[in-house]
Amino acid sequence: MTDIASSALGPGTLYGIGTGPGDPELMTLKAVRLLRACPVVAYFAKRGGPGQARRIAASHLDGTHEEVPMVYPVTTELPPDSPAYAAAIEGFFDEQAERLAALLAAGKSVAVLNEGDPFFYGSYMHLHLRLAHRFRVEVVPGVPSILGCAAQLPIPLTIRDDVLSVIPGTLGEVELAAALSRADAAAVMKLGGNLPKVRRVIESLGLTHRAWYVERGTTETQRVHPLAEAPDVAPYFAMILIPGQGKRGDVLTAPQAAKSEVAE
Amino acid sequence: MTDIASSALGPGTLYGIGTGPGDPELMTLKAVRLLRACPVVAYFAKRGGPGQARRIAASHLDGTHEEVPMVYPVTTELPPDSPAYAAAIEGFFDEQAERLAALLAAGKSVAVLNEGDPFFYGSYMHLHLRLAHRFRVEVVPGVPSILGCAAQLPIPLTIRDDVLSVIPGTLGEVELAAALSRADAAAVMKLGGNLPKVRRVIESLGLTHRAWYVERGTTETQRVHPLAEAPDVAPYFAMILIPGQGKRGDVLTAPQAAKSEVAE
Ligand SMILES: C[S@@+](CC[C@H](N)C(=O)[O-])C[C@H]1O[C@@H](n2cnc3c(N)ncnc32)[C@H](O)[C@@H]1O
Ligand SMILES: C[S@@+](CC[C@H](N)C(=O)[O-])C[C@H]1O[C@@H](n2cnc3c(N)ncnc32)[C@H](O)[C@@H]1O
Repeated sequence: MTDIASSALGPGTLYGIGTGPGDPELMTLKAVRLLRACPVVAYFAKRGGPGQARRIAASHLDGTHEEVPMVYPVTTELPPDSPAYAAAIEGFFDEQAERLAALLAAGKSVAVLNEGDPFFYGSYMHLHLRLAHRFRVEVVPGVPSILGCAAQLPIPLTIRDDVLSVIPGTLGEVELAAALSRADAAAVMKLGGNLPKVRRVIESLGLTHRAWYVERGTTETQRVHPLAEAPDVAPYFAMILIPGQGKRGDVLTAPQAAKSEVAE
Repeated sequence: MTDIASSALGPGTLYGIGTGPGDPELMTLKAVRLLRACPVVAYFAKRGGPGQARRIAASHLDGTHEEVPMVYPVTTELPPDSPAYAAAIEGFFDEQAERLAALLAAGKSVAVLNEGDPFFYGSYMHLHLRLAHRFRVEVVPGVPSILGCAAQLPIPLTIRDDVLSVIPGTLGEVELAAALSRADAAAVMKLGGNLPKVRRVIESLGLTHRAWYVERGTTETQRVHPLAEAPDVAPYFAMILIPGQGKRGDVLTAPQAAKSEVAE
């Protein structure tokens, strides 16, 4: 789509690269090829750490790249729902986009690393929306966290005519309950401090027996539990999955199916 | 999960391998490694063709594998909703599972190719549900078609607090309308002959201006159109995507955003 006006666009190409959910082997061949070919690699980071996407791609960064860490500003004094916070974050994205624009204009292609898939709740989008009208862009899809996590369960996430809903745990209880009660299968992302609230809603809908908790899925420190046995405190990289039951007939409940399938 | 009882399980391992949506370069490093390591490669196929997953993985199948095509029975005389059809298909999956069980019991590991991701509406699940209690199994997640297709759009599929619904086009009009009207972002899969019905529902909800049609996404014959400009007849490998608008504020409509981003 973005090639239409390519003659008018700057010389470097911006690649939004999905790194997959955590296991470096879940990067795609295309992600690895482009990463090696780009002279500049950019990634979001928190003060004090390189960020998850940089960690996943580490073995392909051999010191030959110009690295551009985009370090989130510390905004602890601003409440995350306030207009002041929103303005600070938007300003930060504006600045980072201009940093990359300068490199692209100088003819350097830039790979932006994005945990999971870039267009699936990915932070890359903030750069894309600011730069796609000025430079050539290409999005390289990745394995999203919901499917990296689902692969750890004993039964499929969606079967036959299931409707799957992907729900941010940041929603309020009423919205969460509405979204969850309508879905045949569900993934609740952005858990962290939202875990107690999400758990309460799932319990009130009688869905706990079908729900799984997956923390740092596909990484070496992964944890997978039926929700009833999940820890009380969840990190940011955690989600709850409720596999579907296959609308055209099968009735499978997740933890029960797990038992009947794993033990003879 | 399935390692708990591993000492009691047969000697070969069953791998459900996601091949990604179509572009062979969107296979993961892990999928390629395991495919090369397994002596047996199995895949579903229609009479007369090797199937999409086999095509995607073709360059890694160098004649050294034992190939097991699992050819769907021709059941044109049975209506797809009838109990007789369901029984025929279930019988077919039973037979194929036993074919693989014999190989696994003989100590051969088997890679089952699955287009996109295996646990996301994948046909591999029919074998998994029949074999996971008898053999070691591992699911290798893949890039799902919805994200391969979303990467071709000018704007992200989901932003901020969007709820995403993935909806099979096989649902009836009432169910389709209900699922679509509640979602912030949506993907309607299994298009084919369902296109006129799905289009009618999207039009009746006033969502056509936000909807995109993607056919054979990420392959060389891919087509991407705003839904209003989509063809009248869709193949099986086609879907409709309705990107979210970012619940916390942004208002972007897909084809409009495309214009404002692509053309200066
Ligand atoms: C802003 S979203 C980014 C999603 C990402 N772009 C993707 O495609 O998966 C961050 C959320 O993804 C989920 N997540 C990402 N990686 C995960 C992992 N390895 N295990 C569990 N959850 C994960 C968590 O719910 C986290 O709060
Ligand atoms: C049974 S589902 C399998 C989904 C697959 N397991 C995945 O992860 O994407 C088949 C449907 O996926 C969608 N699909 C698969 N590949 C596609 C592609 N390359 N382009 C568009 N749609 C595709 C179509 O809607 C098709 O009817």
